[in-house]
Amino acid sequence: MNVKDNAKFPKVVIIGGGFGGLQVAAKLKDKPVDVLMLDKHNYHTFQPLLYQVATGSLEAESIGFSLRKNFSSQKNFRFQIAEVSKVNPENNTIETTIGEVAYDYLVIATGSTTNFFGNKEIEKFALPMKSVPEALNLRYRILQSLEQATLLPNKDDREPYLSFVLVGAGPTGVELAGALAEIRNNILHKDYPELKKEDMKVYLVDFLPKVLGPMSDEASKGATRFLKDMGVEVMLGVKVDSYDGEEIKFEGGKSIRTKNVIWSAGVMGVIPDGVNKDLIVRGNKIKVDANCRIEGSENIFAIGDVAAMITDDTPKGHPGVAQVAIQQGKYVGETILQTLNGEANTPFKYNDKGSLATIGRNKAVADLGKIKFQGFFAWLIWMFVHLISLLGFRNKIIVFVNWIASYISFNGGSRLIIKRFEKDDAPKNKNELKDKV
Amino acid sequence: MNVKDNAKFPKVVIIGGGFGGLQVAAKLKDKPVDVLMLDKHNYHTFQPLLYQVATGSLEAESIGFSLRKNFSSQKNFRFQIAEVSKVNPENNTIETTIGEVAYDYLVIATGSTTNFFGNKEIEKFALPMKSVPEALNLRYRILQSLEQATLLPNKDDREPYLSFVLVGAGPTGVELAGALAEIRNNILHKDYPELKKEDMKVYLVDFLPKVLGPMSDEASKGATRFLKDMGVEVMLGVKVDSYDGEEIKFEGGKSIRTKNVIWSAGVMGVIPDGVNKDLIVRGNKIKVDANCRIEGSENIFAIGDVAAMITDDTPKGHPGVAQVAIQQGKYVGETILQTLNGEANTPFKYNDKGSLATIGRNKAVADLGKIKFQGFFAWLIWMFVHLISLLGFRNKIIVFVNWIASYISFNGGSRLIIKRFEKDDAPKNKNELKDKV
Repeated sequence: MNVKDNAKFPKVVIIGGGFGGLQVAAKLKDKPVDVLMLDKHNYHTFQPLLYQVATGSLEAESIGFSLRKNFSSQKNFRFQIAEVSKVNPENNTIETTIGEVAYDYLVIATGSTTNFFGNKEIEKFALPMKSVPEALNLRYRILQSLEQATLLPNKDDREPYLSFVLVGAGPTGVELAGALAEIRNNILHKDYPELKKEDMKVYLVDFLPKVLGPMSDEASKGATRFLKDMGVEVMLGVKVDSYDGEEIKFEGGKSIRTKNVIWSAGVMGVIPDGVNKDLIVRGNKIKVDANCRIEGSENIFAIGDVAAMITDDTPKGHPGVAQVAIQQGKYVGETILQTLNGEANTPFKYNDKGSLATIGRNKAVADLGKIKFQGFFAWLIWMFVHLISLLGFRNKIIVFVNWIASYISFNGGSRLIIKRFEKDDAPKNKNELKDKV
Repeated sequence: MNVKDNAKFPKVVIIGGGFGGLQVAAKLKDKPVDVLMLDKHNYHTFQPLLYQVATGSLEAESIGFSLRKNFSSQKNFRFQIAEVSKVNPENNTIETTIGEVAYDYLVIATGSTTNFFGNKEIEKFALPMKSVPEALNLRYRILQSLEQATLLPNKDDREPYLSFVLVGAGPTGVELAGALAEIRNNILHKDYPELKKEDMKVYLVDFLPKVLGPMSDEASKGATRFLKDMGVEVMLGVKVDSYDGEEIKFEGGKSIRTKNVIWSAGVMGVIPDGVNKDLIVRGNKIKVDANCRIEGSENIFAIGDVAAMITDDTPKGHPGVAQVAIQQGKYVGETILQTLNGEANTPFKYNDKGSLATIGRNKAVADLGKIKFQGFFAWLIWMFVHLISLLGFRNKIIVFVNWIASYISFNGGSRLIIKRFEKDDAPKNKNELKDKV
C-alpha cells in the first residue's frame, strides 16, 4: 500500500466497519499495533434506523458515518474501501479487490446479509433491507408504488401497488410495518389525495405464532396490539410458498396480490472463501471459541453476526444484535493486546442489556432484564438509546431535529425519489491497481 | 387521470417544479382553476446549494423538497411524475410518459441543462452538475478519486486522480472551486493522511478574461483573490480543446492530466418537441413576448431559463438566475388570472435584487445594486438569503445545523459514497399505463 507499513508493529486487519469492527479498532488506539480496516462502503451504517431511511423519514447521511472521519485522530489506523474474497490462513494473507493484504491478526467482522433460504424466485422479486443502498431502493419502491397507484383509475389495478407485505416479524419487520402504517394513517391523505387510506394495506407475516419472537410475551403482545391499532394486518403461523413479483402465495392456499414484498425473515453470515467449511454452522456463521477465535487458528477472530460462539454456556450462540457485536469487538481488541503482552485470555461473557423495539409514535416495547413495559415510556427510552448510540454529534442533532419535526407535524420526512444518474460514477481501474498494493 | 377533472374550471398545466413552476402554482391557490404540475422528479431542487451536495457537505434531502408535500394544502393542485416529450399547440395537449394530457393554459418551466456546445467527447467524460443525481454522481467521483489516489504509491500515477479541473468560472464553477479547495486545505490531512495537500490541485478555467462574468469588476476581483488565497489555480482566457477522460487539452498547447473534469461552462434550455422552431433562439431558449407568452400563442407561456424575453427593453433577454424564474412565475400566475377575468395584461418587469456568490468560509462577494462588497459580511448575507429561500422549515434547520457544525469543526459534511443497489428500483409499466391516463 501507499502508506509505509510500520514494520515494527504487528498488523491487525479488520474486515468490516460495523458495530463490532469499530470497537476492535477503537480499543487498539495508541497501542503498538498497525490497524487496517477494510469495508466495501466508506461509512459505518447504523442499521437499527435503516427502516426510517426506507420510509423516507431520515436521510441516509444521518445514519451513516465516514469511517475515515471517525478514526481521523487515531494515528495507527488506516482505511481502504475493499471487498474481501478469500482468506489464506496458511500465509496470513487475504485476497481483496485492492490486491493481497498481509495480516498478523485478522478480525472477520463482516456481519450478515438477507437470507432468502435458497428461494431464487423470492430473492429476485422481494426487497431486502440490510444496507443503505437497499434501504434507498426500498424507499424508491414504496414511493413509486404510491405514484403508480395515482395513475390507475381502477381499484383492482391499484390494489397490488397499495399492498405492502412484510415477511418476518422480527424488529425490522415490526418497525417497518409500523412506519408504513403511519404513512397510511397520517401522510397518504395529504400527499396523495387521489388515494384512499382504506385502499392501502400493510401485512406483517411470520411463520412463528408471535411477533418479536426472541422478546418476552408481554413485548410480543404489546407490539401486536399496537400494530393492530394502527391498522396492520398481522398474519402469524403463516408460511410463504412463492412470490413471482405479482402475487405472494402462502401455504394453505391464501394469497395477496402485491408488487411490494419486503423480506426480513432471516439473515445469514457473510463469510469469505478460505474459511474451513467444517466450522460453518447454521445461519452461515463461523464457529468460534470462547475467545472469539476461529477454531484451529491462533490469530483469526470472528465477531458479531458472522460468528457463532457455541460453548457449554451458550449452546445456541448469541442473538444477532448490535450489543453482541459491540461487546465482542471490545473483547477482541483487548484479547489481541493481552496476547501481544503474553497474558492469558479470559473467556468472553455477554452482558444482555435488554431489547427494545418501536412500532410508532408513542408506541414501543421494552424488555430490560426482569422489567418489561410497553407504550410511551418505552418509546422515549428507545429514542434516547438510539440517539446516544448514533456516531457523530452532527448526526445526533439531525436525527433529533427530524424526529421533533415529525412528531409535531405528523408529516415528517422528505420522501424524495432520487433517481440514478446514468454516467459512470467512479474511475474503474481495479486491474491496473492490483499489483501495486 | 384517476382524479376527476373538475370540468367547470380551466386546466393549467405546469411543466417543471423549479423556482418558476412553484410560483405559478402558488399564485393560483384557491382560484377557479385546476392546476396540474408535471416534473420528472417528485421534488423541487434548490439548485444554488447543489455544489454542497456534490462536495459531501449537505445531504441531497436537505436541498430537495417533495412537490406533493409542498402543495398538500392546495386543493386545486395535483402532481404527477412525468417527462414531457411533445407539445401539440393545435390540440392543446402534451405527450408525456404517463400519456396525453390536455390543457387550457400551459406553462413551460422546464429550466436548463448543461451545454457541452456539441462536443460529444467532452460530454462523455466531463461531469455536469445541474440536478441532484448529477451532484451525487459528482460526489462519488470526487471521493472515489481520493480513495483511488491512496492506493497509488507513485506520485505520477496519483496526479490525474488528485487534479480537479472546473471548466466555467460562473457562480457554480467558483463555488465548487472554493469547496474543493476547502476539502484540500482542511479535510485532506485528516481523512486521507496518506495524501499530501500539495498533491491535490484545483483548477478553475474560463475562456473569458474574468471570473463571475456577469457580476461587477469588484466582485470578480474579490472572488479571484479569495480563490488564489485558497490555493485554486485560476486560468482565464483559456479555451478547452479536448478531453478524453485522461487529459484535458487547451488551445495553445497547455494540458492537464486529470480524471476529474467538471463542466459548468454553459447551460441550454430544455424544450419539448412541438414548439415552433423559428422561436428557438440562442442558448436553446424559447422567444416569448413581454407577457411571457410564446409568440403566436394565446395560452402557452414559457418562464425562467427556458424563456428568452427579447424586447426593446431587454434586447439580450434576462440572466439565467432563480430571481428571474421566480418573478416570471408569479407574473404568469397573475397573467392567467387576469386573462380569465378578461383584464388586460401589463408587461413583465424584472426587479434585479442583485447577485451573491460564495467562495468559502467567511468569503463571499455581493453586488446589491450600487452597493458592492466582499468578505465576511457578504458571506453572512449569502448564508441568510440561501437559508430563507430554502423550502421547508425542517430543511432550513438541517442546513443551518450542518453549516454551524462545519464552521466550528473545519470538518463538516458526511462524505458518504453511497453506491447503487442493483435490483430494479421501481415498478416499470409505462406502456400498460399509457392508455389509462
